[in-house]
Amino acid sequence: MKEDLIIVLAPDSFKESMTAKEVCEAMERGIKKVNNNITCIHVPMADGGEGTMQALVDATKGKIYSLKVVGPLGNEVEAQYGILGNGETGVLEMASASGIQLVPTEQRNPLITTTYGTGQLIKACLNHGVKNLLIGIGGSATNDGGAGVVQALGGKFLDECGNEVGLGGGELSKLETIDLTNFDTRIKEVTIEVACDVNNPLCGERGASNVFGPQKGANKETIEKLDGNLKHYAGIIKKQIGKDVLDIPGAGAAGGLGAGLMAFLNGTLKKGIEIVIEYTGLEEKVKCADMVWTGEGGIDFQTQYGKTPIGVASVAKKHSKPVIALAGNVGEDIDCLYEMGINSIFGIMKGATSLEDALTKGQENIEKTSENIIRLMKSL
Amino acid sequence: MKEDLIIVLAPDSFKESMTAKEVCEAMERGIKKVNNNITCIHVPMADGGEGTMQALVDATKGKIYSLKVVGPLGNEVEAQYGILGNGETGVLEMASASGIQLVPTEQRNPLITTTYGTGQLIKACLNHGVKNLLIGIGGSATNDGGAGVVQALGGKFLDECGNEVGLGGGELSKLETIDLTNFDTRIKEVTIEVACDVNNPLCGERGASNVFGPQKGANKETIEKLDGNLKHYAGIIKKQIGKDVLDIPGAGAAGGLGAGLMAFLNGTLKKGIEIVIEYTGLEEKVKCADMVWTGEGGIDFQTQYGKTPIGVASVAKKHSKPVIALAGNVGEDIDCLYEMGINSIFGIMKGATSLEDALTKGQENIEKTSENIIRLMKSL
Repeated sequence: MKEDLIIVLAPDSFKESMTAKEVCEAMERGIKKVNNNITCIHVPMADGGEGTMQALVDATKGKIYSLKVVGPLGNEVEAQYGILGNGETGVLEMASASGIQLVPTEQRNPLITTTYGTGQLIKACLNHGVKNLLIGIGGSATNDGGAGVVQALGGKFLDECGNEVGLGGGELSKLETIDLTNFDTRIKEVTIEVACDVNNPLCGERGASNVFGPQKGANKETIEKLDGNLKHYAGIIKKQIGKDVLDIPGAGAAGGLGAGLMAFLNGTLKKGIEIVIEYTGLEEKVKCADMVWTGEGGIDFQTQYGKTPIGVASVAKKHSKPVIALAGNVGEDIDCLYEMGINSIFGIMKGATSLEDALTKGQENIEKTSENIIRLMKSL
Repeated sequence: MKEDLIIVLAPDSFKESMTAKEVCEAMERGIKKVNNNITCIHVPMADGGEGTMQALVDATKGKIYSLKVVGPLGNEVEAQYGILGNGETGVLEMASASGIQLVPTEQRNPLITTTYGTGQLIKACLNHGVKNLLIGIGGSATNDGGAGVVQALGGKFLDECGNEVGLGGGELSKLETIDLTNFDTRIKEVTIEVACDVNNPLCGERGASNVFGPQKGANKETIEKLDGNLKHYAGIIKKQIGKDVLDIPGAGAAGGLGAGLMAFLNGTLKKGIEIVIEYTGLEEKVKCADMVWTGEGGIDFQTQYGKTPIGVASVAKKHSKPVIALAGNVGEDIDCLYEMGINSIFGIMKGATSLEDALTKGQENIEKTSENIIRLMKSL
């Protein structure tokens, strides 16, 4: 082993245990215990889902802000957004303002839930003068086609009498015209990328309402109504804005928020992990490194579908760098991951242990495993 | 990594989960999954304690025999001994015939427990025509100074009237002379090595009765009696045989069996791990290998005191070979083990799991961890 090895540390968070940044720090402690001359480059990662804002803020030494916004049910909730270290990029997760975790199970009703709060977070980013905006849209409680976002940014959704319709996907049936006179003009100056890992169309069998409606509390009748409403909404968008979002892959993501962001904010849908790779500058860092370490709370065959370790491995493989992955839980059928560029995968548990203990001792276990990997490398 | 690597696999058993041989086999499966050109040399190990007979029989392709003998309480028990692959060496564990695990807690009484069955196992080995005998003496239920062994081999323990005394340490107070007229003469032709990791003298504060009596069921009064009896016994040995065993380190092992084996069988006490290293031919195999893998169910700071991984590491270190250790449980304060020649230590658990599950999935976990270690090595 070279004495002055350079290692890129690019793990995801370990859910309920450590942020990605904390994983990086624990890895470095273990590594440095064996060899203080190794350079560790921290690139806390995420895949566009939960933890993306935190990871990107950490990776760029940015800042997180809190804001009171309208929650999915119309009540006030405390949400967050981040401004990256360059000062030019805002990052937010729709779930922070409009997520399903904010709605108690018995109150879940996608007829009334709104993305209004997500629009307020976008507005807050615009107030910082950002030039780019990254939006993660996983975990939504909504089925409003992003109408709430447009409403929060000054768009008026009017019925046939010219009165504003209410919030939520159930109201879209009344929609006749969208008045964008007061729509926030700063949006035009901002490049918006949307982290989206599903390719569902807006409507129909594979559409937002049918596929994701049930988990948001919709029964068969509600789904039919919501699906019809989104189709009606798409028709009006086409007529007024000239964009046909109905069948664009990803339009149905987050209850049609995908469609809304494409239509009104000129957003581009991209795989979450690709956005994170881009904004962390992972590739440039990997190029100069000798090897890459990644990891995630759980690694299994599903990891191949756009999760962080595989995204990191794809970058590393491009530059022929070995990749080691650490995981709290190593699941089944992981052989595919080796073929996709992860060279080796190590569990971090020290022995039989409860889940609670495993989550509590995450950093200690990461540190110890990292130490022993370097010890092994040193001995060869 | 060289394609045609040679790896010595020298693990202990993982108690309640796998024999040392099964650990070797699981390691090889994992290794071969990545590189079929690697040569794996199996050296199932033990440290002189439980599993030593099995490991040495496995390591030398020997055979295990079962025999009905007199148990510690005088009742019949089924015990085992092994004949190593060379046909010239017998191996047995005293616990198999005279162990504490054979006596229910409420019946534990070192005044009456006897090593007679252990003597019968020795006799059975002599019947195979062995030239060497290895005896593990951990886990005894007895405090008879090995009197039972001598009795089983034809020695007569007589009282002042010339009548035979009974079995057990409590009877030794009556002992006046030992008649060795009919003592098995084949013993003289056999080299006997005794695996013994304690250095307690026969009597006194650090003696057999005081230190190990309580765990065998002795109260204060019994201990005093037993200690006095062993002192009396040592006096008679000195007078009749001319050997002073009283203060020899290890004389107090296994309720004074250490003393008995030295006095009557000319046995040599050695560290268990050293005997196993010798009889497995570990060093010759390590010399030709590129690296050495070891392991044990649990590895922690106590591993440094004569346990298999450290014994294996000491041999490997002599020949500058890297050592990797695998463990079901990686305990606390293991830094000392690195200094003693183990280069790296890996836990084998895949995630949070119950002890039961960990024990059941031992082989699967060993295999997977071994595979990933080789994958890592291959990627460097």
